[in-house]
Amino acid sequence: MNVEPDRSFDLGTYLSIRRARIDATLEKFLALEEPRALYEAMRYSLLAGGKRLRPILCLAACELAGARAEIALPTACAIEMIHTMSLIHDDLPAMDDGDYRRGRLTNHKMYGEALAILAGDSLLAHSFELIARHTTSIPAKRTLAVVAELGRAAGPRGLAGGQVKDLANEGKSDVGMEVLQDIHTRKTGALLEASVLSGAILGGADAPMKARLRRYAQRLGLAFQIVDDILDVTSTREALGKCVGNDASAGKATYPRVLGLGESRRLAEVLIADARSDLAVFGDRATPLVALAESLLQSLR
Amino acid sequence: MNVEPDRSFDLGTYLSIRRARIDATLEKFLALEEPRALYEAMRYSLLAGGKRLRPILCLAACELAGARAEIALPTACAIEMIHTMSLIHDDLPAMDDGDYRRGRLTNHKMYGEALAILAGDSLLAHSFELIARHTTSIPAKRTLAVVAELGRAAGPRGLAGGQVKDLANEGKSDVGMEVLQDIHTRKTGALLEASVLSGAILGGADAPMKARLRRYAQRLGLAFQIVDDILDVTSTREALGKCVGNDASAGKATYPRVLGLGESRRLAEVLIADARSDLAVFGDRATPLVALAESLLQSLR
Repeated sequence: MNVEPDRSFDLGTYLSIRRARIDATLEKFLALEEPRALYEAMRYSLLAGGKRLRPILCLAACELAGARAEIALPTACAIEMIHTMSLIHDDLPAMDDGDYRRGRLTNHKMYGEALAILAGDSLLAHSFELIARHTTSIPAKRTLAVVAELGRAAGPRGLAGGQVKDLANEGKSDVGMEVLQDIHTRKTGALLEASVLSGAILGGADAPMKARLRRYAQRLGLAFQIVDDILDVTSTREALGKCVGNDASAGKATYPRVLGLGESRRLAEVLIADARSDLAVFGDRATPLVALAESLLQSLR
Repeated sequence: MNVEPDRSFDLGTYLSIRRARIDATLEKFLALEEPRALYEAMRYSLLAGGKRLRPILCLAACELAGARAEIALPTACAIEMIHTMSLIHDDLPAMDDGDYRRGRLTNHKMYGEALAILAGDSLLAHSFELIARHTTSIPAKRTLAVVAELGRAAGPRGLAGGQVKDLANEGKSDVGMEVLQDIHTRKTGALLEASVLSGAILGGADAPMKARLRRYAQRLGLAFQIVDDILDVTSTREALGKCVGNDASAGKATYPRVLGLGESRRLAEVLIADARSDLAVFGDRATPLVALAESLLQSLR
């Protein structure tokens, strides 16, 4: 699992090694049990082969802070479970009513609404148990700080609150930048930020390092959402693995809609440059996190 | 808040003092914020005036273990949030499709399905943040053990798994005792057990004390479900604050249906007597927990 960041660092190799490790650990932490239908529904969405960006950020931040990535592995997996929960619930008919996700039918299309709701609840509850039970070799106080950070990111100040605001602004033609940023800070930013922070906390980062990593994550999170909005306009379903033009047809507020495509691109570039400079002080140790930020822009080319 | 258990112990007074303290703390831990509609939906169901049995059990177990009840107050409130989450989600149209709960319209009848789902998610996420952030004066390791215990009770091995099994057996005329017990162990038992255990852990209980309290809680949980099933048959909507005959009309497996009313009553009595004897060794310190168990039977008279 060890990947030494250096000048010959190859992001593609790094990501595929980390992704494989995370996928194997997710599989281990969610073995099939009774009730079988529920575990199958949980595994269907969790093991559908996402990019694992959040857990990878968590592991990278833990290493940057000076600890072995293994220490953060249960938390990294828990974060992917929380992320998957929010995807399953956001896709429900009462919300975004999505048919495809990660290239396959959405959870409720496969298992029905009741199981989809309960699979989401289960992933959320299980994620906290996982962190509390399987994080070892570090002071319990750090693990508890991670629970607080992720509880906040998943709740009304994060994912759930962002989704409420998103739904409330659907179909409105006059959504301004402020509301749009608030939605994304909660819906995308909060969990990305908590992923980086959790890794940093587990790795034993001091206050100045945590502050820098938090800024990096906030900029990355915003850039991530802008790029996602842009791709929803410019990409194809085959490339994304989900329906494109979803946001526009749902009348959702997006960056291209509010700022235009060109200005959205420029904003993403500025954010990534700033994110990069947040980490300059860490030198080569920050190579993976810097490369991850820059890869976002490459997806626009 | 201090209630000294002694021979003149009055359960009614004890419960109302505890309930008032829990209600005030719940209110404090869930102040109204943005997005307002989400917090209103969370507060609507959380502050609807339940019996607060689970948090009261948690505080009582903490005191039995020798610590001040205050230490367990954030956890007790978190437990009520988890319980409320499961009520909101179980009531959804895709599941039990309930119209009334705790004497008022169900959450989705008031706020719509999307907000009801997200209010449940929010309560669950918030509950873990609450425990991690506000539990003070004890070793972090104990708090982490509580997070693990409650994560398990809310997840596929507890509440969510129980609801899946419950739905899967709806309308079946041949549900046996084994399946029925499995459903209730997850759906009712797991969180009651975790409530008692969490209090014991926070209070610093040793392994034998935890084992005794776990047995007590398991018996109490089962008795609780049996009594609930009996009241669904014999009580009125005014007395319960929710629709009666719900279980029968939904074709749900219940104790009266499988064992008959008389045998169900007898089983509840045996369980309560056993629960009482589990705690005999603690003498007067166990007075509230013993009285709580016995009060279950009184509701049948």
